[in-house]
Amino acid sequence: MSRAEGRLDEAGLIARFFRPLAAAPGAALLSDDAATIPTGDGPDLVVTTDALVAGVHFFPDDPADAVARKALRVNLSDLAAKGARPAGYLVTLALPEDWETDWLDGFAEGLAADQEEFVVSLLGGDTVRTPGPLMISVTALGFAQEGRTPRRGGGAPGQRLYVTGTIGDAALGLRLRQDERLALKWDLRRDEREHLLDRYLIPEPRLALAGVVAAYAAASMDLSDGLVGDLEKLAEASRCGAILEADRVPLSRAAARAIRADPSSLTDALTGGDDYELLLAIHPDDVDAFEQEARAAGVPVVDVGALVEGAGVEVESNGRPLALETRSFSHF
Amino acid sequence: MSRAEGRLDEAGLIARFFRPLAAAPGAALLSDDAATIPTGDGPDLVVTTDALVAGVHFFPDDPADAVARKALRVNLSDLAAKGARPAGYLVTLALPEDWETDWLDGFAEGLAADQEEFVVSLLGGDTVRTPGPLMISVTALGFAQEGRTPRRGGGAPGQRLYVTGTIGDAALGLRLRQDERLALKWDLRRDEREHLLDRYLIPEPRLALAGVVAAYAAASMDLSDGLVGDLEKLAEASRCGAILEADRVPLSRAAARAIRADPSSLTDALTGGDDYELLLAIHPDDVDAFEQEARAAGVPVVDVGALVEGAGVEVESNGRPLALETRSFSHF
Repeated sequence: MSRAEGRLDEAGLIARFFRPLAAAPGAALLSDDAATIPTGDGPDLVVTTDALVAGVHFFPDDPADAVARKALRVNLSDLAAKGARPAGYLVTLALPEDWETDWLDGFAEGLAADQEEFVVSLLGGDTVRTPGPLMISVTALGFAQEGRTPRRGGGAPGQRLYVTGTIGDAALGLRLRQDERLALKWDLRRDEREHLLDRYLIPEPRLALAGVVAAYAAASMDLSDGLVGDLEKLAEASRCGAILEADRVPLSRAAARAIRADPSSLTDALTGGDDYELLLAIHPDDVDAFEQEARAAGVPVVDVGALVEGAGVEVESNGRPLALETRSFSHF
Repeated sequence: MSRAEGRLDEAGLIARFFRPLAAAPGAALLSDDAATIPTGDGPDLVVTTDALVAGVHFFPDDPADAVARKALRVNLSDLAAKGARPAGYLVTLALPEDWETDWLDGFAEGLAADQEEFVVSLLGGDTVRTPGPLMISVTALGFAQEGRTPRRGGGAPGQRLYVTGTIGDAALGLRLRQDERLALKWDLRRDEREHLLDRYLIPEPRLALAGVVAAYAAASMDLSDGLVGDLEKLAEASRCGAILEADRVPLSRAAARAIRADPSSLTDALTGGDDYELLLAIHPDDVDAFEQEARAAGVPVVDVGALVEGAGVEVESNGRPLALETRSFSHF
């Protein structure tokens, strides 16, 4: 077999090699943020795993505590998206030969800080040597009310689309990280620049909203590969289309300033990865109660569009279609 | 911090950096084969993870299906040791740039074959690129009767020690793999040579015994780092000593022939890794029922010694202490 034939992207690779192995209903054909397993009379178990490779998913010189927190938080974000409360996590660490005590001290401190913040505890793991780069694989376990896990495919035309927090900060933070001159071009104040860099470095898993997600979301996912591309996945799984009103997408002050100064960076904000905010489809009858309970949980949510009949995602601005150069981000 | 200070072994590294994070009782301070999580009214969840790195844990030219099966089976073996029935597994694959379709076809075929053999299904995973070697991390989930998971530390003086299957085949298989001239030195027939090589390549998780383990084992672990060293861990966790009667340790015909031809290879058999058999401590009152039910489950078990007052493991042969050059094997 030629190597050229092997050039599948991650989704193609999963579809071809791994989907046929995922026979359990709770595996959702590997097309969701997490799998669910019934436990008999108890709650459903929710399980997810995500790996980070140095030089691919984070910069080798990122602070060790931030790397640890990101590795844990991207998994906790998946639990939040499925309305689950965390039960624990496992860490597998592949360490290169030149690992340093200092680095592992920082890594453990990052985990300890987040264990306290999210009331979660380490359950196990594995430590192996590798001649390659450092790699961290985290598996997070959670519990959800039996049968109440919102799937990506639970949406239907007419439902409103909500996102948590602000969108695009991490993608703009990544661009700043790659080219620090952009801070000048985007006219950013120092605290705004740091806000974007921090949001790339350490995402905010929306576990505080998990109960509300379980109660109200018809469909739900976390945003890891960019709002537009991830909305396409949710709409496709729900067998409908979507309209995204770009002007309603919540932006931080820093992101808003960057986009004003450089309108092309709107594409980064809407299609870049690493938001780790939630995207939720809410039935119109539930929007008032949902908004009220989200407010009570202290998590900002904004209505950014709707699911519609048809297929595909239309991004609108001022009532007109907005052309985007790219749609989605891939870490693979 | 100097690199020299960083040269902890895997156990030291876990103790220093990760044990302080493992506050949940079910994490067993990271000193067991698997963690347990209560699920409320349901069974206990049992979870374990093990990673394999190409060039470290397997040979880069091992058949892809065998690599897949080993990655899954070493985790299923941990479930068996904790008396759990498997509920599913996740696979994280770090793929180097030059991955081949053929390799992944074989890998998926290996998983499919074992899914059928052990009635288990893929729940999820992650696929990432790495500039380093191929790495596979598997997390296996299982269920066990509430509160009935035998720990490494449940042993007490007077209990008998049992192992399943035969010991040392994989360690001798690894030596054959490293130096094929040993087949001649050990006077092995072709099928015996293949038996040892196969046992290194594809372990046999003793899931058929899981129910018997849950019912009878006071202490239990799977053998991954060599019988003597692993028995030291079980005895230490149980705060007692152990006597291992080397002459009673069950050997395959191939291993027995190798040891007859080259008595020094007994050390490899008793201290080499990758057996993935079970080591169980059974109360004397239970040995008859245990042996009978193990036989009914079709899993050979042999009494190889006893837990005793004191500390440490004494290996005896013909009633005299046996000196071993090494005690344990480390993949790290």
